[in-house]
Amino acid sequence: MVRVPTPEELLQAARHGDRGALARLLSMVEKGGEGAHRAGRAAFELAGDAYTVGITGAPGAGKSTLTSALVAHVRSTGTRLAVLAIDPSSPYSGGAILGDRVRMGQHALDDGVFIRSMATRGHLGGLAVAAPEAVRILDAAGYPWVLVETVGVGQVEVEVAGAADTTVVVVNPGWGDAVQANKAGLMEIADVFVVNKADRDGAGQTVKDIESMLDLTSRGRWRPPVVRAVGTTGEGAADLWDAVAEHRRHVEDTGELAERRRIRLREELDLIIDRRLRAKAESLLDASDRAEVDEAVDAGRLDPWSAADRLLAPLDA
Amino acid sequence: MVRVPTPEELLQAARHGDRGALARLLSMVEKGGEGAHRAGRAAFELAGDAYTVGITGAPGAGKSTLTSALVAHVRSTGTRLAVLAIDPSSPYSGGAILGDRVRMGQHALDDGVFIRSMATRGHLGGLAVAAPEAVRILDAAGYPWVLVETVGVGQVEVEVAGAADTTVVVVNPGWGDAVQANKAGLMEIADVFVVNKADRDGAGQTVKDIESMLDLTSRGRWRPPVVRAVGTTGEGAADLWDAVAEHRRHVEDTGELAERRRIRLREELDLIIDRRLRAKAESLLDASDRAEVDEAVDAGRLDPWSAADRLLAPLDA
Repeated sequence: MVRVPTPEELLQAARHGDRGALARLLSMVEKGGEGAHRAGRAAFELAGDAYTVGITGAPGAGKSTLTSALVAHVRSTGTRLAVLAIDPSSPYSGGAILGDRVRMGQHALDDGVFIRSMATRGHLGGLAVAAPEAVRILDAAGYPWVLVETVGVGQVEVEVAGAADTTVVVVNPGWGDAVQANKAGLMEIADVFVVNKADRDGAGQTVKDIESMLDLTSRGRWRPPVVRAVGTTGEGAADLWDAVAEHRRHVEDTGELAERRRIRLREELDLIIDRRLRAKAESLLDASDRAEVDEAVDAGRLDPWSAADRLLAPLDA
Repeated sequence: MVRVPTPEELLQAARHGDRGALARLLSMVEKGGEGAHRAGRAAFELAGDAYTVGITGAPGAGKSTLTSALVAHVRSTGTRLAVLAIDPSSPYSGGAILGDRVRMGQHALDDGVFIRSMATRGHLGGLAVAAPEAVRILDAAGYPWVLVETVGVGQVEVEVAGAADTTVVVVNPGWGDAVQANKAGLMEIADVFVVNKADRDGAGQTVKDIESMLDLTSRGRWRPPVVRAVGTTGEGAADLWDAVAEHRRHVEDTGELAERRRIRLREELDLIIDRRLRAKAESLLDASDRAEVDEAVDAGRLDPWSAADRLLAPLDA
């Protein structure tokens, strides 16, 4: 009978190139619970060297094609990197093998790239808690760069992508796409803009639209550059990577990187506390009580304060 | 020495026309805490007859002028009503006497109208908890209609206005105003649209813009009517009130009103539970512990899970 390896053991194996061990650790994170926290604890001490790049934008903007082109460029320079593709609505999980293979088949045989799709349905804390845990695992496993691509563009995904060291926002040519990006809160989190599918009509206008918006929103010392790219051909991938590297130098030189990371860690702690309190509260609240109390409230027999009193009584016992 | 009246006694006095007692109850709600909950409990049994109308829109849309015109119209029909003007950022509170007088001076001597501005800085649960409490007080005091005007247009204010029996969204003529309303999430909560300042250029186009958006967003059995009004002259106030009355008949006849109120009450209970849990957690967490733990996390000596363990230890004691 084979003993199940601990998260600490898996992490050591992952650091020595065991991709299966790394995949198992990420599955633990995806699943959540004590295993995820134990893996996170072990990774915390070893992490801190990776630089993270968030890639976000509206569905259909060509993010994964662009990410794949970016990976090809980075690999051509000899640098190793990991990609975490986050899709909360994905039916795939536990490795999302099919999704990963289809998405980035060209890198399948390259040992210098680790690509992982992540769904987070099983994680009680949700995407906002799971994503930084997964990034920390990849960091601790020794990848110097971690790209975090968010597939959708909901509030949490914007937050996750915005919680990177450098955040790349992908838009497309076409009337109003820059406006849509603004609407979704992407203007505020962008460190670098990329107009993808730049071989299409209207790319120049979209660049202008973004520049106009940037004129209006003074953002202090860093003005996000606007890069053109064509994900399907790889055109512009080098320019995009140069822009990312330039932003990295900026945040490193100004001390902004350390400050960003400090704030992120605090936010992560707040979130963990919040989720644990909720979990604890839920474990104390009796589900049959809640149904009974809901019924009494519906019928007007119980006011919400008295209902809360009754439901929260176990906490004071 | 005069004994301080209980919330129950104040409520009885308010029901017999004592406006000072009503003002004191609303101050209790504004302040939050046990007094607010006790007032809310007492009001719960007596409330349920008032019909609530939320009025929201972007700053500068002329909401309070329009509300004042609406009040004048409703009073001309002999109906009594209360107005709750919610402004979380207001420096006024505890009655906001200056604000109220300036806002709706013409109704100052009319006993059939009760107008109150409310700031909620003191209320731990925030606006989302305080607003339904205040509405319930006005309901229990015997006003058959309660207008809830939100002054800003943040997420919480949209939620509060959208939690009325009928929600009126105010927009202005001009390019993009309907688009802005959509952006702020107002399209989804509107039961009635009013294009205020309809004597200005572009009113017809704005009506068309809204109708086009309504064509795109099928909303089931009720299609929000689009009314034109001029708050400063009172023009259109009667049409607006007719539209509100029509929506009221719709939600009453279809049973939607009862369902809306049931859902709202559940949400209120969830919110109360959530805020109490947080308050309880905060009371258990030692502030000096938190500072110390934050420092250790900042310095990288403590991972966030171990930090959470330490901070939450009192909960398990």
